[in-house]
This record gives sequence, C-alpha cells and structure tokens, in this order.
Amino acid sequence: MSATHLAARYHRAGDVHAERVERREPRAGEVEIAPLFTGICGTDLHIAAGHMDARVSTPAVIGHETVGTVSALGEGVSGWSVGDLVTVVPLRPDSTCATCRNGFSHVCDHLDFLGIDSPGALAEHWVVPEHTLVRVPDGTDPRDAALLEPTSVAVHDVRRSRLQAGEFAAVVGGGPVGLLIALVARRTGAEVVLSEPDPTRRDLAAKLGLEVVDPVTQDLSALTRERTGGAGAAVAFEVSGSAPGLTAAIGALAVRGRLCLVGIHAAPREIDLHPFFWRELELLGARLYERGDVEEAVRLVAAGELPVADLVSHVLPLSRVDEAFAALAEGGAVKVLVDCRPEGRA
Amino acid sequence: MSATHLAARYHRAGDVHAERVERREPRAGEVEIAPLFTGICGTDLHIAAGHMDARVSTPAVIGHETVGTVSALGEGVSGWSVGDLVTVVPLRPDSTCATCRNGFSHVCDHLDFLGIDSPGALAEHWVVPEHTLVRVPDGTDPRDAALLEPTSVAVHDVRRSRLQAGEFAAVVGGGPVGLLIALVARRTGAEVVLSEPDPTRRDLAAKLGLEVVDPVTQDLSALTRERTGGAGAAVAFEVSGSAPGLTAAIGALAVRGRLCLVGIHAAPREIDLHPFFWRELELLGARLYERGDVEEAVRLVAAGELPVADLVSHVLPLSRVDEAFAALAEGGAVKVLVDCRPEGRA
Ligand SMILES: NC(=O)c1ccc[n+]([C@@H]2O[C@H](COP(=O)([O-])OP(=O)(O)OC[C@H]3O[C@@H](n4cnc5c(N)ncnc54)[C@H](O)[C@@H]3O)[C@@H](O)[C@H]2O)c1
Ligand SMILES: NC(=O)c1ccc[n+]([C@@H]2O[C@H](COP(=O)([O-])OP(=O)(O)OC[C@H]3O[C@@H](n4cnc5c(N)ncnc54)[C@H](O)[C@@H]3O)[C@@H](O)[C@H]2O)c1
Ligand SMILES: [Zn+2]
Ligand SMILES: [Zn+2]
Repeated sequence: MSATHLAARYHRAGDVHAERVERREPRAGEVEIAPLFTGICGTDLHIAAGHMDARVSTPAVIGHETVGTVSALGEGVSGWSVGDLVTVVPLRPDSTCATCRNGFSHVCDHLDFLGIDSPGALAEHWVVPEHTLVRVPDGTDPRDAALLEPTSVAVHDVRRSRLQAGEFAAVVGGGPVGLLIALVARRTGAEVVLSEPDPTRRDLAAKLGLEVVDPVTQDLSALTRERTGGAGAAVAFEVSGSAPGLTAAIGALAVRGRLCLVGIHAAPREIDLHPFFWRELELLGARLYERGDVEEAVRLVAAGELPVADLVSHVLPLSRVDEAFAALAEGGAVKVLVDCRPEGRA
Repeated sequence: MSATHLAARYHRAGDVHAERVERREPRAGEVEIAPLFTGICGTDLHIAAGHMDARVSTPAVIGHETVGTVSALGEGVSGWSVGDLVTVVPLRPDSTCATCRNGFSHVCDHLDFLGIDSPGALAEHWVVPEHTLVRVPDGTDPRDAALLEPTSVAVHDVRRSRLQAGEFAAVVGGGPVGLLIALVARRTGAEVVLSEPDPTRRDLAAKLGLEVVDPVTQDLSALTRERTGGAGAAVAFEVSGSAPGLTAAIGALAVRGRLCLVGIHAAPREIDLHPFFWRELELLGARLYERGDVEEAVRLVAAGELPVADLVSHVLPLSRVDEAFAALAEGGAVKVLVDCRPEGRA
C-alpha cells in the first residue's frame, strides 16, 4: 500500500484541487474502497464556495456520491471481498440520540456526514465504516451506479410522498434531483409533469421521455387541473429551492394533495397558509435517504429501469477536479462525474 | 304551524338581533328541527363584525352549532320521527365537483355551509336537508350535545394528526377548539400539554385536568423535550391562529413530527422551512369534519367521555342573542350557548 494517494481537497472559498495526500489503512470495522466515479452535488458546490466553512474543517477531502470497489478490509470485517462493487451510504449516526432511538438515524441529531463532516470520496481511496456499504450487482454500469446517491434521494422523496400508480405528480425544478424524482415517480406508475425554466434542462427532460413545461410561459396549475378533471395534482415535489417554485407547487395541488419539500430554502418564506387549511393540504419535509431507499435505488439502477447515466453531462479525471467544479459553478452542466481511477488504469 | 318564529339575524357590521321572521315548512327531503341550544363560534363573530359581508347575504339567520329535536318532516323523509334528538352536519356539498368525486365532499369546491351561505340555527326552527341529521342518543345532556360541532372539529383534527396512544402532543391555543382538541387527544391515550396565554383559560384547562403552560413565561419546546427524552412532540396542534403560536408549534416537534394546522391564518406567514427539511416535519391542514367525525363526537359525548359542557361560560336566551355576541366579542367568555327554546317552554 503506497503511503499517499490523489485526493480532491477543499482549502478555502474557490479552491478545491487535486493533490497527493496521506492515505490511511482501514481500522477494525472499516473498509477501504477505490472509488470509480464520484459525483459532485450542490452541497459540494456550497462547500467549494465557502458557504459551509463553519462546518467543514480544512483542508478537507470532500465528495459523497460514489461507486467503487472494495480495496482493503479492516480487522473483523466479514462478508466483503476485495473487488466487490459497492456504493456507500455516507451517514454515520451516533445511534444514541433521541432521533436515532426513535428509528430516524438517517437524520441523527449528531450525524457525521461522510464527505462533509469527515473525509470523502473524491480520492483514489476512501475508508468508510463497514455498515455504510451497499452491494451493487456485478454488471451494473458504473456510470449509472455513480448516480445511486441522488437516486436514493429521489426514491426517499417519492416514498415520503406516498405517490401511487395512477396519481398525478408535478415536479417543480428539473436539476439532477428533480429529474431523478420525475423518473422514479414515473416508474411508480404515476403521471408526471416536470416544470423547469432552463431550456437545456427541458431538452434533457424531453429526451428522457418526460413531459415538461416552462414555468415562465406555461401555467402548471391550469395544466394539472386540465389533466385531472379539475382536481389538481395528488403530489407536488418542490425541487427548485426557490420561492416561485414553492408557490407553483402549492398551487398545483388537489384537495388533500401532498407537497414533498425537497428543495432547501435557506431563507424564511412568506407562505399563504390558506390553501393548506381550505384544501387540507399536506407538507412533507424530506431529507436524505434511509438504507432501504439506497437498496431500492440499487435495485432500480441495476435492473436498468432508470436511464440515470443520461443525466451525466461531464466526466473529468480526478486530477482535473477543479475544472469539474468550475463546469458546475458556471451552469450548463447537469451531473458532473469525477473519474477517480488512477490515470491509465481505466 | 305558526307563520313566524323568533330568529337571530345579521343585518350589518355590529348588528345581530332577535326578531320574528317568516318560518318555512320543510320541503321534500328536508326536516325541520327545533334547536335546543345553539353555540356561537369564531366564524359567527366574524360575520357579526362584518368581515364576511362578501359571502353572507343579509338579513341572514346565522348559527350552525346546534342540538335540537325533530319538529316536522318533509315529504319522502323516512327514518326520523318528531321528537328525535339530533345534531346537524351543516354542510351541503354539490356532490359533483372534482373534490366531491375524490371523496372529500366536506370541503366541496362549492360547499353550501348552512348558517353562513344559507339560513342557520339561531332560531326557534331550522329546516335542513335530511342527510345532514345525526342522531343523538336519548339521555344525552343537551348542553353537552350543543358542543358536538366544535367537538367534531377536534375529532377530525386528532384523526388527521394520526395521534397514537403513548405519543406526546402539544396543543397551542386554549380557546374552545384547542381545549376540545386537548380533551380528545388525551382520550386517545396521548400525553397532552396545552399552551395558552390567557389566565382564565389556563384555569379552565387546569380544571379540566389538563397540563397547561403560559407561552409568555414558559418554554413549550424545552418542556416537551424534557418529557420525551429529548425528542420533542410527535404532534403539535396550531389552534391559536397566531404567528407566535405557529412558531411555537413547529419548535416543539420531534423529527417526523406532525403539525396539524387548525388555526386560520388569514395573512401570509414568514415561515422558516429549514426544520421541515432538517427534521422531516409534516404539516397537515385540517378543515371542518367529515360525517364519521361527527358520529364519533356523538359517541364520545353521549358516553360522557368528554366533559365538554364545562367549556360553557354563558347561556343566554335567543331573545338576548345580541348580548351573547357582545359577551364573546368582549373576551372573557369561552363557549357561549343560546337557548333557542320558546321562552317559558323550558
Ligand atoms: N432534501 C434533500 O435531502 C436534498 C438532497 C439533495 C438536494 N436537495 C435540494 O434539492 C434542490 C434541487 O437539487 P439539484 O441538485 O437538482 O439543484 P439544481 O439547482 O441543479 O436544480 C434546481 C432547478 O430548479 C430550477 N428552477 C428554478 N426556479 C424554478 C421555478 N420557479 N420553477 C421550476 N423550476 C425552477 C432551476 O432552473 C434548476 O434547474 C436544491 O435545493 C438542493 O439543495 C435536497
Ligand atoms: N380548521 C377548522 O376547521 C377550524 C374550525 C374552527 C376554528 N378554527 C380556527 O381555530 C382557531 C381556534 O378557534 P377558537 O374558537 O378556539 O379561537 P379562540 O380565538 O377562542 O382561541 C385561540 C386561543 O389562542 C390563544 N393564543 C394566542 N396566541 C397564542 C400563543 N402564542 N400561544 C398559545 N396560545 C395563543 C388565545 O389566547 C386564544 O385563547 C381559530 O383560528 C379558528 O379560526 C378552525
Ligand atoms: Zn443519533
Ligand atoms: Zn363538490
């Protein structure tokens, strides 16, 4: 085992770059994996922009959306072999807080989020607790599997929404998460319409076979009512993180409709609660995923039931991770993957 | 049948008074009842204050919370006899809109709310559609039965919240509706704490055996966490209609806690959505009641399982209905009943 390996580290606002850093061996109960592809998400962008300096201790190896192979086993680890294809549930709960005791350890009061609160997956090697591994069937395309983490978010959100076959769902926001929610919702047997102002993203949605509207020129609420005999959508997913998106999602809902809140609204929002009362609406906050969601995402992706790799707009080698962040920050990209394999190996 | 009877009519802002008005016979499918007691609620106060002039056509006989006896049957009505003790579900849905077709006729898109949109129960006689009647067992104290309508609201809200025995529930607002929610929630086997700033209402709550806190001097969130091993409340009922009440209800909730929104918030509220995301909270809008809720309320009240008559602070005869409204408008009253029996008969 070489003493150093290549990793992407965040140093300060605007500075994420690849460099050789100390590599550490897995301890008891830990497994080392060799990431194949690691995706970059909005949270990684926030870290890179310096928005999360209060939480992230620098220099920090970041990244948490990965597929890789097992490369070394710590003491006492059983059931895994070197070479196994895996993804990682990047959550280490404390198992002792009231939230964990109530069964919601995925949002533990003292959650250690691997890749944010401790070292992450934008590296040639990543040491993680054994319990975080989820097996990915051999033969699964690694570029599909690289999207298992955001797909798990989508599976969790659709499950939270209690969406049923035959129901109508509006998805507000067609970024990677909104697109994946739309794909998972469609597979549930629901009728799905996606709202997204960006024409490139609308084109991608259309290519994925999704019905898509432009919120600037089209009325989501009217369209939804037209399609549902006047009732409105059974479910709306707010995945834009924007105030107008929130208003549009609420406006599309039928009586007893469920608003699944996925987008992160950092600032307080002025919300008219009258429709929540008048139409008995529900709002369901959704965060991350539970292990069962990840397992379901693996099942769907391994079976080829979701064309997730179509969301990938860029693949760059780890040595050029700074360009990967720049591509995302500039806009125009959808999903950016970093190829973490030692160069020349692939 | 005399041609006129005494009724309370709303004429204009500040003017509700009793006067003799035309009495009409029940038509086919209708039943005439003789109200014993009719309660006055916040909506009646809003009408009396002139806030609902756009909806109410004057002069209007108002009131919708009643218990009475059947006094005459329209053509084709079967299953009811003169003298039967009944309450009324004051809702006439159109049965044809998308909301009705989806099974939510209690919030029909074109709901005729008896006592608001058509004549009401503050009168010696009230003609209602047969389908609105719910039988009240003989021997039920009519002063308890007079609270069946707000008790039905409470039953509906507790059901919407999915509150279970052993869970912890915070009720924010100790007006008639909040007190009834607390009583119904307690009967479910939940641990209940009520928050109410008014000392007279806190005293009443304490007399009902409820645990009660003053939001001005006590910290509901801290108390809730102390009682739940740090977790927070499984359910919070927002029944104050106030912005601080809403914030307090959200703050009391555990991860995956359910906020049942009962209070009417006419103005948009600045809401921090972060806890909805971070703690996967739910918000459940609740409006009125379904027939099953009314039947359950009748069952609970008839069995003497809820000390609802203890909420009654004033009983005034119909001829003094103006004083009944004044008592409520002044504050200090909790539940005000109007005795609708022809004077001298009781
Ligand atoms: N709940 C969770 O656990 C979780 C997990 C991942 C991401 N998120 C959040 O989900 C949201 C989406 O994530 P993403 O990576 O897809 O982000 P993104 O920024 O790539 O996508 C948001 C999309 O919404 C679109 N949009 C903006 N205004 C709109 C409007 N009025 N109507 C319709 N669409 C509109 C934007 O054009 C953009 O394409 C973000 O807020 C993110 O923070 C939440
Ligand atoms: N959803 C429905 O179908 C439905 C039905 C009936 C009533 N309502 C609404 O429910 C609410 C309660 O009805 P009510 O008749 O009991 O009204 P109410 O005005 O008598 O009671 C509200 C109580 O909240 C208290 N309060 C105010 N600020 C508070 C705070 N910060 N914390 C705790 N308590 C606070 C007040 O002192 C008052 O006692 C109203 O908003 C009413 O419009 C809704
Ligand atoms: Zn925990
Ligand atoms: Zn209807």
